[in-house]
Parts: sequence; structure tokens; C-alpha cells
Amino acid sequence: MSAKPFSFKLLKTDGMARRGEIETPHGIVSTPAFMPVGTQATVKAMYPGQVRETGADVVLGNTYHLMLRPTAERVARLGGLHTFMNWPHTILTDSGGFQVMSLAQLRKLDEDGVRFQSHIDGAKYHLTPERSVEIQGLLGSDIQMQLDECIKLPSPREEVERAMELSLRWAERSRRQFETMGGPEKGQGLYGIVQGGDVPDLRVRSAEELSKMPFEGYSVGGLAVGEPQDVMLRMLDITTPVMPVDKPRYLMGVGAPDDLLESVKRGIDQFDCVMPTRAGRHGLAYTRFGKVNLKNARHMDDPRPLDAETDCPASSVYSRAYLHHLVRAGEGLAAMILTWNNLAYYQSLMKGMRDAIETGTFDDFYQKTKADLARGDIAAL
Amino acid sequence: MSAKPFSFKLLKTDGMARRGEIETPHGIVSTPAFMPVGTQATVKAMYPGQVRETGADVVLGNTYHLMLRPTAERVARLGGLHTFMNWPHTILTDSGGFQVMSLAQLRKLDEDGVRFQSHIDGAKYHLTPERSVEIQGLLGSDIQMQLDECIKLPSPREEVERAMELSLRWAERSRRQFETMGGPEKGQGLYGIVQGGDVPDLRVRSAEELSKMPFEGYSVGGLAVGEPQDVMLRMLDITTPVMPVDKPRYLMGVGAPDDLLESVKRGIDQFDCVMPTRAGRHGLAYTRFGKVNLKNARHMDDPRPLDAETDCPASSVYSRAYLHHLVRAGEGLAAMILTWNNLAYYQSLMKGMRDAIETGTFDDFYQKTKADLARGDIAAL
Repeated sequence: MSAKPFSFKLLKTDGMARRGEIETPHGIVSTPAFMPVGTQATVKAMYPGQVRETGADVVLGNTYHLMLRPTAERVARLGGLHTFMNWPHTILTDSGGFQVMSLAQLRKLDEDGVRFQSHIDGAKYHLTPERSVEIQGLLGSDIQMQLDECIKLPSPREEVERAMELSLRWAERSRRQFETMGGPEKGQGLYGIVQGGDVPDLRVRSAEELSKMPFEGYSVGGLAVGEPQDVMLRMLDITTPVMPVDKPRYLMGVGAPDDLLESVKRGIDQFDCVMPTRAGRHGLAYTRFGKVNLKNARHMDDPRPLDAETDCPASSVYSRAYLHHLVRAGEGLAAMILTWNNLAYYQSLMKGMRDAIETGTFDDFYQKTKADLARGDIAAL
Repeated sequence: MSAKPFSFKLLKTDGMARRGEIETPHGIVSTPAFMPVGTQATVKAMYPGQVRETGADVVLGNTYHLMLRPTAERVARLGGLHTFMNWPHTILTDSGGFQVMSLAQLRKLDEDGVRFQSHIDGAKYHLTPERSVEIQGLLGSDIQMQLDECIKLPSPREEVERAMELSLRWAERSRRQFETMGGPEKGQGLYGIVQGGDVPDLRVRSAEELSKMPFEGYSVGGLAVGEPQDVMLRMLDITTPVMPVDKPRYLMGVGAPDDLLESVKRGIDQFDCVMPTRAGRHGLAYTRFGKVNLKNARHMDDPRPLDAETDCPASSVYSRAYLHHLVRAGEGLAAMILTWNNLAYYQSLMKGMRDAIETGTFDDFYQKTKADLARGDIAAL
């Protein structure tokens, strides 16, 4: 028996901004969507139920980490990643390629794939497009990514082009494996990944070639790897117009609140980023009025919460003085409260964008959000 | 206007075991009670609402830590410790003396008090019986402790006697300061602390002398400092019979589940201990069937929860395989789930004892609990 097919409905547009719904075997993902990062089968410092309550429809799992520990085969035996991590909603996994290049030791890439040693125990692995999709299938991922090669920027055009062409060939191999694994029948989706660095014509060629292949969605990869925001946005300006209209578009690894706003404006539907969770573990809070560093002594005697006008207890109940104390004292509760606050803020930003697109007021929301972010945090007492 | 006075109602006895209720300005504490430790104004890795949901009526704050950071004066300006840490229920504070002796640097004790340097920044402090009670008053503590001198065991009788006599003189000074601060009018309580090490006649003398002073409750201090359990229980056997019947009795810093069971059997009403919270941060779970080390490889493929027959999600939802993974991966969620499980187990043990005393079945409960603990964890798959 086949599951309901993976689907994307484009409900409304406002300029280039899009309001949509992705349907997967584990529910509906309202887009534009921010996907909290759950690298090792946990969104750090958060209970899974809490992540859901912030408004997340989908979380991301990292194939590289999970293949090393606890291993895809073990997760499969234990009922799949949803059961394992108690997240019954949609899960997206990356291909593992990005982390192999940033974390693994002694990596060696060729046409076939990439060989590397685990950063945990030095064990040897061989990740190919086929094995990456196999792992993602074992995990039971609803939204899977092709293996690609993501290079650092800036790089010479020849190098960018070589990696982009290799990624296209890997896209085909990934797709064949996905079909062999029965992904489409399970209602899962596989996304192709647009590469091409900061070279406009390579980005366009990559998007056009991928569009000829039957992916359920399309990612924009290889951005947010150190280039200035304006380079990233210029790449989106030329890329999203040549991407299929009727498929979701996922900008990988992005970003700060302003990046999300600018990218939705350019037609992006999905995002993931470690910023809100990582910042939460380093004493930093995201609010409507920008980033707040709770380590700062100015909060020491401040009885006000991060943002009294929000529903999230993390933002409205605990005083800045208390959060400052927890951060200074190295208490785990600081990371718990701040991560919660940050994910709640990110989700409220996404909901604000979705609501604005629905009512045709995205530009107003964009202006207002920019102004709030520029205003900065409330003055010290 | 005076608050309702601090009170203790002895509702029921079963053998030496006592079921009671302490009333403080912040609610009712059902006894026998276990008080989770919230050293730095947080029960580590737990949201305050969660601590309450496990069934805790009272948490403990450490005067030594709080006087150094964020300081008692700052907490007072911010509305007191209840407001600061978002715990609107009863708070008990220790006197700071125990931690000064175990954590502070360059400490020097004399008749007046103890001089020491902060373990955080080396700043100099002078803690006297008066200052300790002043700090506890600034924090707004509902149940305060006299400053005492707690010595290591074994120690020579002369040394034990000297410290016990000093503690009696400090008890008087602490009481005077408590009355100067208006503690009784605020409905707060101050407990005297029975010392005397492992010397029976000194324990009896300490308890008798303290009983002549008008404390709202009486603690048994200086136990669980490294001596075998049977020494501790022998001290309780001779001490609780000479303690006032109509006042709560608090055994400080105790203990393992079996210690709680044995001490309630001997007439103790209140306990605090870091065991459940500390163990939770080290991959250890307390269950009805003893301690479980989640680091152990035998859990790697075990889909069963810690204890399927409990209401607490921490115990019944997450698989041992997942907990093993989180512990091995060094994820903060491991400490969050295991601390939650451990506090829920401790509270369920206390509730079991309270219910049993009410129905006159404490001995049955005692036997059953001992048998379960001795049975040990479920066998590996």
C-alpha cells in the first residue's frame, strides 16, 4: 500500500514571497518554515514537546552525526528517527556531505563519493550518493537531501564549476537510489541542491539542470558559508526565478532573522540554522528588538523579562537579572530558557511572515520587522 | 500586620513514622518531604514549574552560594528569592556554614563566626550567626537554619564536643537575630541544629539543650558526612526520641532512597540531598528497582523506557537506547530527562511513605520498597 504522495501546495504569493504547505507522512509543514536543528537526534537543551509548542512543524537531523552514532541501522531497528527522538512530526535530514567536509578527518573526495574518518573514534567510512540516501531512508526521514559537494567561498570559477557539475551527477545517482528505496511510495521527498557558489551563470545552470529531474523540492546550497549577506541575496535574486514554482525551495543553513526576512521576500520556503539554539547556549537571546547578551553587567539588576509582550514563558516570565545570574553561574537552565526563547522568537517571526503573505501585507511586515530589529533592545534601567 | 504563624501539624503516626503538614508563608509542605536542592537559585537542569509538577512543596537554596552571587542584597532588591527564581512555593535555606567549610578558601573559625574567601573570586567574607540569619531574611527564606559547625567524622570526642557546644551558643545568637529580623511575625521558621557527631551522649545533650530554645523546627546535622549508614541510623535511634514531638525534624543532606525509608521509620520529616539531581547529570537514573547507569552498553539497543509503569514522561516515554545515546553524545537533554526522572522518583517515594503512614501500613510499604530496591533493574534484552 502506498502512502499519500509527498506534496506541496502554493497557497498564496505576495510579490516573490510565498505561503505554502508541504505534506509529508508526518504532517503538514506550513511555509515559510524555520526548521530547528536537531543534530544528534535532539534539539539541544529542549524537550521535543517544547520544540513543537514553539510552533515548529519540522526539525532537521544531521546524517553525518547520526551515521556515526547511534548509526542509521540502529535507529532503523529502534523504529526510525521519529520514534527514537520522540518527534512524531516531519523530519528533514541533510546528506551528510557538508559535515564530512567541516568535521571529519582525512577526507578524500572523488567521483564515487567521499572517504573519511570519524571525528569521534577515527573509524573509516565511505559516503556515496547511494549510501547517503540509504542512510536517510533507514532513519525514515520525510525530506531527504541529495549528496552534493559544498565548497568554501571565495573559490576559483573552475573549482566552483567542477563541484557544481559533480553535484549534478550525484543528484541523478541520489534520485535513482531514492526510487530504489521506495521513497516516493512512502510519501517521502528528495530535494536536489542548487550549487554554483557566487557565480551567477553557474547558479542558473545548476538550477535549470536540476529542474529537469523529478525532485519533490529544491534546495539552495553553498551559501551562508562566509560570504557577505549581499552576495547571498544576489545569488537568490538570480536563482529563485529559475527554480520550479510548484516545488518547495529550501535555503540551507540560513540564518539570522534579517536573512530569513530577505530570503522569504525572494521566494524561499524553508530554512534551518543553528543560530537560535547555539546562541541560547552562549547567553544570547534573540528578540523582536535584536540580539541581547545576557552576560552583560547591565542586566544584573534588571527585573524586566526579555520581552513582556510575548506568550512564551521563556521570554516573559524570567527576569533579565535572573538570566544574567544563570549565565554567569554557568547553570544549564540558562541554555534551556534562552534556547526556548530563541526558537519561540524564530517561530513567531515565521508565523508573522506567513500571516502577512496570506493577507497581502508582506511588505508592511518586512518594514516593521526591519525597523524593530534596527531599534535595538530596550534601554538599561 | 503579622502573617499567619509558621506551624506544624502532626496528622498521623505509624510506629515512629510521622505524617504531618508544615505551613509557611508560601504554602503547605506535606511531610515526610524531600526537598530538591536549588543551590544557585535553580534546581539544576529543571524548569521551576517542572520541579513543582514532580510533587515538591519546597526547595532548598544554599546561603553560601547565594551570598557570593548574586548576593542577598541584590536578591532582596529584586523581590526576594521566590520571585527571583520563579518558585512561589516554600523555600528552605541552609546557614552557609557547611559549604564554607567544604568550598571556601582560607577559612578561619572562632567564637564569633567564620572568615573565608570566596571560591569564585577570592573576595573576603565574615559569616556570623547574625549575618547568616540576616542573609536568609534578605532572601525571604521560609525555613531558615541557625549557623552551626559541622565537623568531619570520625573526629576525637573533644573536638565533637567543642563544635557541638559552639553550635549551641550560635543557636542562641541565631535565634535572637531571627527575632530582631521579625521572622516570627512574617510566619517564617528558624530551625536549631542537633550536632554531636557519632557520640550518643553528645547528640542527646545537643537535642535536649536545643529543645529548651523556641525553634520552629529541629534539624539533625553532621550526619551523612562519610560515616556508614548504620552509624547514621544509630544516631537517629537515640536522637529523635529526645526531639520535640510537635516540631518538624529535618535530617540534613540525606540521602539515598534507602536512607529516606530508614529515617522516616525513625521519625524524620524533612530531607534534602543532591543525589537525584547530581546523578541525573552523570547518566544515572533512580527507579523503583534501584539505580540504572545509562552509560552502560547494555542499554544501546533497548527500546524500553526506564519504568513504563510511572506517570512521569521522563520515566515512561524515552527509550533506554535513546537515553544511552544522549549520555554518550554528551547532550544536555540527558541531564534534563534523568534529573526529571530522579526527582519524580524521589517524590513518588515520599508520597508512597506519606500515604502508607496515613493508612497505617508503613511497615508494608517499607518491606515492599526494600524488596523492589533489592530486586534490581530489569534484565537486559
